[in-house]
Amino acid sequence: MNKPVYTLSHLAEKIDARVEGDDQLTVSGLATLQNAKETELSFLANPVYEKYLSDTEAGAVILTEAAAEAYSGNKLIHENPYQAYAELSHLWAFSSTRQVQSTEIHASAVVDESANLGQGVRVGPGAVIEPGAVIGDNVQLGANVYIGQDSQVGEGTLVYANVSIYHGVTIGPHCILHSGVVVGSDGFGFSPGPKGWTKIEQLGGVVVGAKVEIGANTTIDRGALDNTMIGNGVILDNQIQIAHNVVIGDGCAIAACSAIAGSTTLGKNVIVGGASGIAGHLHIADGVHITAMTMVIKSLNEPGVYSSGTGVQPNDKWRKSIARLRQLDKMAGRISALEKQLKQRGEG
Amino acid sequence: MNKPVYTLSHLAEKIDARVEGDDQLTVSGLATLQNAKETELSFLANPVYEKYLSDTEAGAVILTEAAAEAYSGNKLIHENPYQAYAELSHLWAFSSTRQVQSTEIHASAVVDESANLGQGVRVGPGAVIEPGAVIGDNVQLGANVYIGQDSQVGEGTLVYANVSIYHGVTIGPHCILHSGVVVGSDGFGFSPGPKGWTKIEQLGGVVVGAKVEIGANTTIDRGALDNTMIGNGVILDNQIQIAHNVVIGDGCAIAACSAIAGSTTLGKNVIVGGASGIAGHLHIADGVHITAMTMVIKSLNEPGVYSSGTGVQPNDKWRKSIARLRQLDKMAGRISALEKQLKQRGEG
Amino acid sequence: MNKPVYTLSHLAEKIDARVEGDDQLTVSGLATLQNAKETELSFLANPVYEKYLSDTEAGAVILTEAAAEAYSGNKLIHENPYQAYAELSHLWAFSSTRQVQSTEIHASAVVDESANLGQGVRVGPGAVIEPGAVIGDNVQLGANVYIGQDSQVGEGTLVYANVSIYHGVTIGPHCILHSGVVVGSDGFGFSPGPKGWTKIEQLGGVVVGAKVEIGANTTIDRGALDNTMIGNGVILDNQIQIAHNVVIGDGCAIAACSAIAGSTTLGKNVIVGGASGIAGHLHIADGVHITAMTMVIKSLNEPGVYSSGTGVQPNDKWRKSIARLRQLDKMAGRISALEKQLKQRGEG
Repeated sequence: MNKPVYTLSHLAEKIDARVEGDDQLTVSGLATLQNAKETELSFLANPVYEKYLSDTEAGAVILTEAAAEAYSGNKLIHENPYQAYAELSHLWAFSSTRQVQSTEIHASAVVDESANLGQGVRVGPGAVIEPGAVIGDNVQLGANVYIGQDSQVGEGTLVYANVSIYHGVTIGPHCILHSGVVVGSDGFGFSPGPKGWTKIEQLGGVVVGAKVEIGANTTIDRGALDNTMIGNGVILDNQIQIAHNVVIGDGCAIAACSAIAGSTTLGKNVIVGGASGIAGHLHIADGVHITAMTMVIKSLNEPGVYSSGTGVQPNDKWRKSIARLRQLDKMAGRISALEKQLKQRGEG
Repeated sequence: MNKPVYTLSHLAEKIDARVEGDDQLTVSGLATLQNAKETELSFLANPVYEKYLSDTEAGAVILTEAAAEAYSGNKLIHENPYQAYAELSHLWAFSSTRQVQSTEIHASAVVDESANLGQGVRVGPGAVIEPGAVIGDNVQLGANVYIGQDSQVGEGTLVYANVSIYHGVTIGPHCILHSGVVVGSDGFGFSPGPKGWTKIEQLGGVVVGAKVEIGANTTIDRGALDNTMIGNGVILDNQIQIAHNVVIGDGCAIAACSAIAGSTTLGKNVIVGGASGIAGHLHIADGVHITAMTMVIKSLNEPGVYSSGTGVQPNDKWRKSIARLRQLDKMAGRISALEKQLKQRGEG
Repeated sequence: MNKPVYTLSHLAEKIDARVEGDDQLTVSGLATLQNAKETELSFLANPVYEKYLSDTEAGAVILTEAAAEAYSGNKLIHENPYQAYAELSHLWAFSSTRQVQSTEIHASAVVDESANLGQGVRVGPGAVIEPGAVIGDNVQLGANVYIGQDSQVGEGTLVYANVSIYHGVTIGPHCILHSGVVVGSDGFGFSPGPKGWTKIEQLGGVVVGAKVEIGANTTIDRGALDNTMIGNGVILDNQIQIAHNVVIGDGCAIAACSAIAGSTTLGKNVIVGGASGIAGHLHIADGVHITAMTMVIKSLNEPGVYSSGTGVQPNDKWRKSIARLRQLDKMAGRISALEKQLKQRGEG
């Protein structure tokens, strides 16, 4: 694949940056400072990597005004090099135009005649679209994707291979769903009784907003009665579990392997670190930041950073800590006894 | 989709309830007290929601005798409104009769001629059934489902799109397998040696009982020599990992993202909260209840509720707790020293 | 399925063992000591199972010289019975020669004409191979597998049904990828800004070495700029998450449901217990062993065994421990106060 080539001048215009150096220099890709070749553009966003600046072979580097002094090569001056890099990354994004699934509707796809497909829709081999489904303009459905009855996929949304969307699910426009994602599976609802568990049919749906990205093998269950809701601009990493009737506010970011139990609501712009768990029927306030592997078993009503867990130790020290943790009640008692004794003697 | 409509009288008969009010009133669905319209039936199961009872617009509400006094509208009196709701939910369950995969065997499915299919079996587009497989009456296999060689799927079982069942697996009758489920993948068995890991071929299978529900993207490995076993009436949520040779007793309920390591056995009716982990070669007694995110590293031989973890704290307080946790051994030593000093002085 | 039958003499030669007893005895499979029939071969690797030796019905048992004295039946003497069992397990491995996917390239597979397929490649029904992909000799691709543009799969690699491999991914030779695996999905890279999250296109790929096994529903993201790297001989269990730009050294073994965050590097032969999490941008030294459910939030630069977590307790005791944990700062203060008082009095 030939990578597209751009002049620094062109790139600067794209991101509203200023060129220092040869603005007609061309670059054919992005790279880290350590690995960039002279045909590539790099950037300095994290001060940790400043040490690589002097030796980089990059053709040019995106830098803040402050950091620019330290570098004598070609540069793009921008107030936020990370954001500049993010925006420019789209110029070199993978283009699927050669793919067999890029033909409009592959001959092996199975599209019900009552489904409604917009302009420019591409449907990969083996994909299945059930009756009543509505697929917006320019949607791309990968190979072997399943779209259930009466579900909707908004304009410009990209669905990778082997995604399963059940019936009655709404996916907004300009979303990205990665392979293995399941949306609309039954919530875990059962009534206990003497004859075992009675299944509660999950009669709600799932509504996913606009510009949502859903990582590989993430699962989002349909609601029991009302819908499970994912707000606009939410980013979900891989292998996340969203249970029935969870509501995720706009702009939330959830890292991989986290799980949110039923009926919990997240406000706007909540950040959840990886492998965290949030119990059911809780509320997490706008802007809360939960660090990785945290166990959230109560509502968090105030913004702030929250954590749990004991952190890693050498196994022998850990064993002692854990043993002591179980003696804490006794230790507290011994302290009280000492305090009492000392007080009695003081008075004696 | 038009929803079916029922009179209160008809519904009362279904669940052995008593109508108070207009027994010829018709309802076309179930809803929460907060969101019900006058054409819908609601229920009060959790006292937390009692506050919504007076303002609900529901056409009728399922209530216990005790709760009924507080409500003047149409009601169905039942001793267990949650169970009543569970049973009635089936009247409004999604019907797939319009789906392209509901034709008996889709033209694009690949069914080996030596496979044995019962009456009324439906096979979705792109599904593959390998030689020797036995598919019971009225089984529904979704789009792109894979059924391996000599595997069996019991009568009435529902398998959603993109499920993978390996060879030599038995799934009982009336089960539900959600999208992305994998049953029969190799257990994680390797012998360490100077030349690296030698794979141990996993020669056992998986046997899943009757009326088991398996959530989206859950994985169940085949046994090393004997079978991995899932009992009758077990309910497994999404993204659960069941390792090789695990045995799960009848009626167990396991919430999402839990993992059970190899050769561990769960008795009957064990309840496991979400994101819990149970180490290998352990035994969990009948009726044990493990709360969410618990780390089980020893057998639990007595019924009871078990937990672990530190629970969420503001990050700054958490940092202090964790630092102190590591000083516990020293703290215990300081207490002992104080006790000794005080004893010496007392004697002195 | 008829299982192959071997004489003890033949098996002894395979694994360089010595027969004691009837070397012409034939066995048709492997089994545990408890469940072996007289037509089966068993082994004693873990002393825990020694108690089953006297009563086993196995036709023969693999034993160390030391353990052999206690057993009077037919035996294969080997210095490492577990390794011997591992090697012999391959003799009874599942053979897919009857499967519909074992025909060379199934008529319903979609293989782009620019893809390059080696000798003896088998492609299952519904599998899709995009332009420019290179599939090595004797590769087996299961039903509905997706291989993205310009990706490579090395010689002899086995890919089970419903695996998704994105574009620009390299899988080495003699690997096994289980169902539901996703390799090459986008890393979780976004730049925060006033208008929300800007997606950073993930321009790197994934390079997986030789003889790597990847468990069901495991996900491996592509790199942001450089590649995500999995070394040779690595074994990954089910539902593992490998984030972008992670580097896993040769011979590492990672148990199910573990997650490794972005840019973290593991040295060689690192062992990670199940459901562990390793934060991003860390380094884990060669040979480190992390026990199950550990939360690793700092680099581990020395070999050794590392752990975290509080371990399971009865719920009521756990509640007390957790409450006390939060009082630790106060407890430490009380100890200091006592020490001060006692010192003053001693001096007084």
